[in-house]
Amino acid sequence: MNTTNDALPDFAQIQAAAARIAPHAVVTPVLRNDALDALCGARLEFKCENLQRGGAFKFRGACNAVWALDDEQAARGVVTHSSGNHGNALALAAATRGITAHIVVPEGAVQAKVRAIQRAGAVLHRCAPTQAAREALCIQLQRETGAVLVHPYADTRVMAGQGTVALELLGQVPGLDTLITPVGGGGLASGVAIATHALEPSIRLFAAEPAGAADTAASLAGGARVAGMVPDTVCDGLRTLVGERNLDALREHHVTVITVSDAETVAAMRLLWEELKLVVEVSSATVLAAIRKSPELFAGHHVGVVLSGGNVDLDALPW
Amino acid sequence: MNTTNDALPDFAQIQAAAARIAPHAVVTPVLRNDALDALCGARLEFKCENLQRGGAFKFRGACNAVWALDDEQAARGVVTHSSGNHGNALALAAATRGITAHIVVPEGAVQAKVRAIQRAGAVLHRCAPTQAAREALCIQLQRETGAVLVHPYADTRVMAGQGTVALELLGQVPGLDTLITPVGGGGLASGVAIATHALEPSIRLFAAEPAGAADTAASLAGGARVAGMVPDTVCDGLRTLVGERNLDALREHHVTVITVSDAETVAAMRLLWEELKLVVEVSSATVLAAIRKSPELFAGHHVGVVLSGGNVDLDALPW
Repeated sequence: MNTTNDALPDFAQIQAAAARIAPHAVVTPVLRNDALDALCGARLEFKCENLQRGGAFKFRGACNAVWALDDEQAARGVVTHSSGNHGNALALAAATRGITAHIVVPEGAVQAKVRAIQRAGAVLHRCAPTQAAREALCIQLQRETGAVLVHPYADTRVMAGQGTVALELLGQVPGLDTLITPVGGGGLASGVAIATHALEPSIRLFAAEPAGAADTAASLAGGARVAGMVPDTVCDGLRTLVGERNLDALREHHVTVITVSDAETVAAMRLLWEELKLVVEVSSATVLAAIRKSPELFAGHHVGVVLSGGNVDLDALPW
Repeated sequence: MNTTNDALPDFAQIQAAAARIAPHAVVTPVLRNDALDALCGARLEFKCENLQRGGAFKFRGACNAVWALDDEQAARGVVTHSSGNHGNALALAAATRGITAHIVVPEGAVQAKVRAIQRAGAVLHRCAPTQAAREALCIQLQRETGAVLVHPYADTRVMAGQGTVALELLGQVPGLDTLITPVGGGGLASGVAIATHALEPSIRLFAAEPAGAADTAASLAGGARVAGMVPDTVCDGLRTLVGERNLDALREHHVTVITVSDAETVAAMRLLWEELKLVVEVSSATVLAAIRKSPELFAGHHVGVVLSGGNVDLDALPW
């Protein structure tokens, strides 16, 4: 993507992001649940990013990117493409600085997410639901408006912002030996990997990926990034392909990817709603699905579980 | 009800309850939400009793009652009737002490709640969905087993336990000037009123009641307890009539009852799911419905809002 710097952030950049977003972001709570612990034979600490501003961790990266701009850049606004949560996050982040956000939304995005983007005051641009169409319209908008592209995941500032999830979680819960996030584009998984191992190199890292969009698992297994895959999963937040640099971070930090079926994920989503009493979106449930699927990896461990978001269409629940 | 002492607890009994349940109950978090604050023009502090053990505040009262028994009483077990949450709470509380719980459940109770009672290891007894049938079977079980009745709300120990919600909330959030709970039998509303005014006599107290089960509002307005009403509301947790002593407490503490329609409550429930990202049951949403219905009473105030429970049947959502 042109005009984007997608170099991996270092720990200092993640610490700087934490300071930059502190006036705007929510320090999300960590919840525990006896029934889920018993079910998984592990001590699970759920980091509730569904309670983050905008209902997803995405606000962290978007907010860091918006406030890292100099005044002259900020005056031209920001632009991105997003199936929903990143677009909403960038719209909200732009509003905190009083600048314009142009959001490219593919047809078929979750209506609740699209409405939230509109409410946040962003300028909405529709396109066909392909990666190529999204990127092309983004480039066109950059040319026309001079707006700065804030890529959903292949962006240093965004990865640094997402990494603050781990910074915060490790400060809230001492003694974690394992951490798991979902993986789509890899902004969260890469930022969390860098922050976690800077603080605690012995923590084991996992990422949960839908079997129908398992390009990350395939890319790590094959040694080269798998680019041509067409995602087919109910997890609307995880249909993007992993970024090149994001993949580098996962490889470097020995992140193990666990793939889960949509049926496993939907069952885990129900469990989270029924037992944890939290509204989490289906993509967020991949992590619990992975823990249930691979008890040999998690039983007896003290596990940080990142619940990535809670933006659902209550009229179209997947069960 | 025979064998039950339904005298109102004093503040010392509520403090004793807090100490008694501390090893077993969850200190539930308090959540805020900018969007809901903006919508209501108030600063709302949601006390998340849906995250309490068993998914409702009811565990507090049941746990206090179970652990207040002497060993000889405890050995005979406990018995109650409940549309769900109190039954589940008593089953869980009995399990913490390793004693038997007999739970009388009326036909038509929410299936998710009935399953939870069974999982907790209680002995289930079905009856017709009338107050008379519930109480008759309870009395029969007391006679047959010697079990101690733990009434859902007309019980000193239960009211004292429910009052710990306020004790905890006021310790977590300084500066509240208003507090609202739902009212059904009145165990929560009365316990909270006593605890709140012992700590902060100037706090204004409100209770939200379904229009289809508004016996409390009618009783307070008319001066005498309305007994003959047949509840007709989607709020399954609020179909019980207010207790005599509970009503005394509401009167003494000048609790203002706000009645809300089921449509207003269901709309508020959706708002809580969508904005706060919490799974709350429909009865719990009466409080937000009341705040939205009466902005003149809440705008500009700092309001403690007790979300009473989160036990829902995900296959039978009310929208």
